Amino acid sequence: MRTKILQQLLDALKKTLPEGSVYSDSDFLAPYSADEAPDLSASPDIVVKARDTQAVSDTLRLCSQFKVPVTTRGTGTGVTGGSVAIRGGVVLTCEGMNRILEIDRENMTCTVEPGVITGNLQRAVLEHGLMYPPDPSSLESCSIGGNVAVGAGGPRAVKYGTTRSYVLGLEFVLPDGTVMNSGGKFIKDATGYSLTGILIGSEGTLAVITKIILKLLPAPRHTLDLLVPFDSIREALDTVQGIIAGGVIPAALEFMEEDALILVGKLQGVDLPFPGAKAHLLIQLDGNSEDDIARDIQLLMAHIPSDPDRIIVAESPQQQERIWKARRSIREAITRESPVFLAEDTVVPRASIPEFLVELKQGFAERGLRSVIFGHAGDGNVHVDVLRDAMNEDAWKKICIEIKNLIYHTAVSYGGTISGEHGIGYLKKDYLPITADPAKIELYRRIKHAFDPENILNPDKIFNTPHT
Amino acid sequence: MRTKILQQLLDALKKTLPEGSVYSDSDFLAPYSADEAPDLSASPDIVVKARDTQAVSDTLRLCSQFKVPVTTRGTGTGVTGGSVAIRGGVVLTCEGMNRILEIDRENMTCTVEPGVITGNLQRAVLEHGLMYPPDPSSLESCSIGGNVAVGAGGPRAVKYGTTRSYVLGLEFVLPDGTVMNSGGKFIKDATGYSLTGILIGSEGTLAVITKIILKLLPAPRHTLDLLVPFDSIREALDTVQGIIAGGVIPAALEFMEEDALILVGKLQGVDLPFPGAKAHLLIQLDGNSEDDIARDIQLLMAHIPSDPDRIIVAESPQQQERIWKARRSIREAITRESPVFLAEDTVVPRASIPEFLVELKQGFAERGLRSVIFGHAGDGNVHVDVLRDAMNEDAWKKICIEIKNLIYHTAVSYGGTISGEHGIGYLKKDYLPITADPAKIELYRRIKHAFDPENILNPDKIFNTPHT
Repeated sequence: MRTKILQQLLDALKKTLPEGSVYSDSDFLAPYSADEAPDLSASPDIVVKARDTQAVSDTLRLCSQFKVPVTTRGTGTGVTGGSVAIRGGVVLTCEGMNRILEIDRENMTCTVEPGVITGNLQRAVLEHGLMYPPDPSSLESCSIGGNVAVGAGGPRAVKYGTTRSYVLGLEFVLPDGTVMNSGGKFIKDATGYSLTGILIGSEGTLAVITKIILKLLPAPRHTLDLLVPFDSIREALDTVQGIIAGGVIPAALEFMEEDALILVGKLQGVDLPFPGAKAHLLIQLDGNSEDDIARDIQLLMAHIPSDPDRIIVAESPQQQERIWKARRSIREAITRESPVFLAEDTVVPRASIPEFLVELKQGFAERGLRSVIFGHAGDGNVHVDVLRDAMNEDAWKKICIEIKNLIYHTAVSYGGTISGEHGIGYLKKDYLPITADPAKIELYRRIKHAFDPENILNPDKIFNTPHT
Repeated sequence: MRTKILQQLLDALKKTLPEGSVYSDSDFLAPYSADEAPDLSASPDIVVKARDTQAVSDTLRLCSQFKVPVTTRGTGTGVTGGSVAIRGGVVLTCEGMNRILEIDRENMTCTVEPGVITGNLQRAVLEHGLMYPPDPSSLESCSIGGNVAVGAGGPRAVKYGTTRSYVLGLEFVLPDGTVMNSGGKFIKDATGYSLTGILIGSEGTLAVITKIILKLLPAPRHTLDLLVPFDSIREALDTVQGIIAGGVIPAALEFMEEDALILVGKLQGVDLPFPGAKAHLLIQLDGNSEDDIARDIQLLMAHIPSDPDRIIVAESPQQQERIWKARRSIREAITRESPVFLAEDTVVPRASIPEFLVELKQGFAERGLRSVIFGHAGDGNVHVDVLRDAMNEDAWKKICIEIKNLIYHTAVSYGGTISGEHGIGYLKKDYLPITADPAKIELYRRIKHAFDPENILNPDKIFNTPHT
């Protein structure tokens, strides 16, 4: 325990919260010192495991009183350090608030606590014939609260939009402990400022979300996946444009360059389906009948130059799962290949993807760097992961700054932005000025101050905040 | 001219802005003294007709300097007094900023100025095979900037969502004249706070929007409308639930009670299609083929108790336009019947609509009041218009307060809210506390202060703001 104030806060938390909620042993703190951001950790002084809104409110009220920073955490799957307690203080983990409170079939909504795993939520609503579309690749481990905190996307965003499109209402707690609600079980709301609108994507810096009302859709009755090989990256990316311009918006339209599947093959110990293919598209179609899907396939095929006999068509859940597991394992496969890497999620207008990626690849090649490009070509959000491989730490640190600048400036020059779905967190904070001028960052600070005048919520995330 | 300060501001504006932009003659000011809110007007002292972002920036900068309030206005079709200059000062009208700057087929976006009429925008993008779904009933006269300012909805929200779902990016001007951008031509954005998210629905109180980037969809190739009569209001509303629970989400699902069509018949001098029907649903289906629509009709019919021979099926654009013109004329027909009325747009969870409306109708009947109920049953946003008829002004004023309280409290008791798509503006401001507790209104004030520290932008709208 570093200071007297922290000891006093610890005593007050233990006195106020239910037994088994407050921890300060270093063994217990260790797993809460990092998220999945490579090469970043900082130990909190105290971990609070909240079980309900009251516990969140009590924790925030006490932290405000003692002016100790609070970093809220779901399951810690973020990749930008957003849930790392950079200034120490309290990590408030909501992983135990994982109840699905209601699935309302009639209104097609569900109400959940923030710690629910996104994949569990999807399965639970599917049992009622309903669909929660957003599907971040980490859906079996990430929490819905974290998804809201960064406005997470996923492959299905091309057709169905991101988390933002599905949040109808929130319960949240302000730093002084005040519990507040916004929205409700309705799509239309023109009643006052959209607190929901500003809280989505605010990365735990404005309030702590304790309940989420989500919009659901009728689940499509049929889905089908196509894995299509291409002779060049350019050919695959041009096909993405052709498909969408042709009027079919697939449920997912994922791009994977050769190296992505080679690394996954190594990880899973399986052979590649199309050895030598330079790029692949994974296309998901969904609809209410097999006829719908057959018609979409016909429309699609007009835009796909590949030999139809070389396309893998996956219709059974087992086949589909196998292909999607490969897609979702790409980042794990990269980690295995090179434990340290840069994970970038810039976004550009969809039509600019081919030029954008060609320009980046050239920049990496000039520097002798290995990169893996994959992700959501259909919505302009392609992941660019650069591997450290055997480079020494100093050289890597230096080149990271150089290539981050390259990637972000190039994205912005194409009319894009520096994060599409991961958030700014801690790792991208210093690069925010590439896309946000000083006036905008000053406006962010004033908004932050409106919610969190004492600056205790997740300080130094998104932008630098003053020390309290 | 009321004061020396206003005279100084007038001189400064005339000196700074292009000729023909600044007006202060009372004849010119008169049409800018009211919007479509019944029974409310207040003359501005100065009207500025902005032609570009620079003019907006100059106007705001000067108004900030002289601390004179600015009320931004599109085409003045709001119904809550949102664009009425309650404290005088400047009305800044953007009706002249009405250029469609770009239709980007490849990225399926368009970039427009705020004064573009929504209907013109829809027709312009349709020529490129694209669809801008939000369709407020005033679409032939309202402006897209106004739609963004209130987060406007419309019949198609049940399937396609509201204006909020289509705004990808904004250019806006802060009260000190700073020009800022948020978002861009991409769906995914996790870069900093969502300024777009908070500006949509902020009713001109935080910034002035000068450019809008909108998401477009491929236009469905076929649409078809059904006009279905019912023997009771309840039967019609139960059918709404049945249709959606059955898995078909129509492009529009509009409810009109008997009186709505009787009044429209009177206005247009035409006979009713189904004399004696107590309620009607207007159902729009859309899809990419006639087969899609045929299948949806089949699914629908299982949930519609009405005699199939009594359903009007409109497939030609002329037939469709005739039916929709009737729907969109309801409010005009009410105005003709009783020039003074209350127009309410509460929203409740869709499944609660039958109970909600039955309870309200009973309350009106007990008070001897005539009401017309119509609107977006599919998304819980049903319009409740109460007619003054021959009641004297004092009695009407008194009963208005009583029935507004009745309508809003009842909506909130069903888990709804007091405005679904019109906004709070001036007329509903005093009722905001029914759904927002003092802590929430205090948070609104702090957010307002973050954007507009001098409180010059549309003061006393949504909530009371201090005098500067």
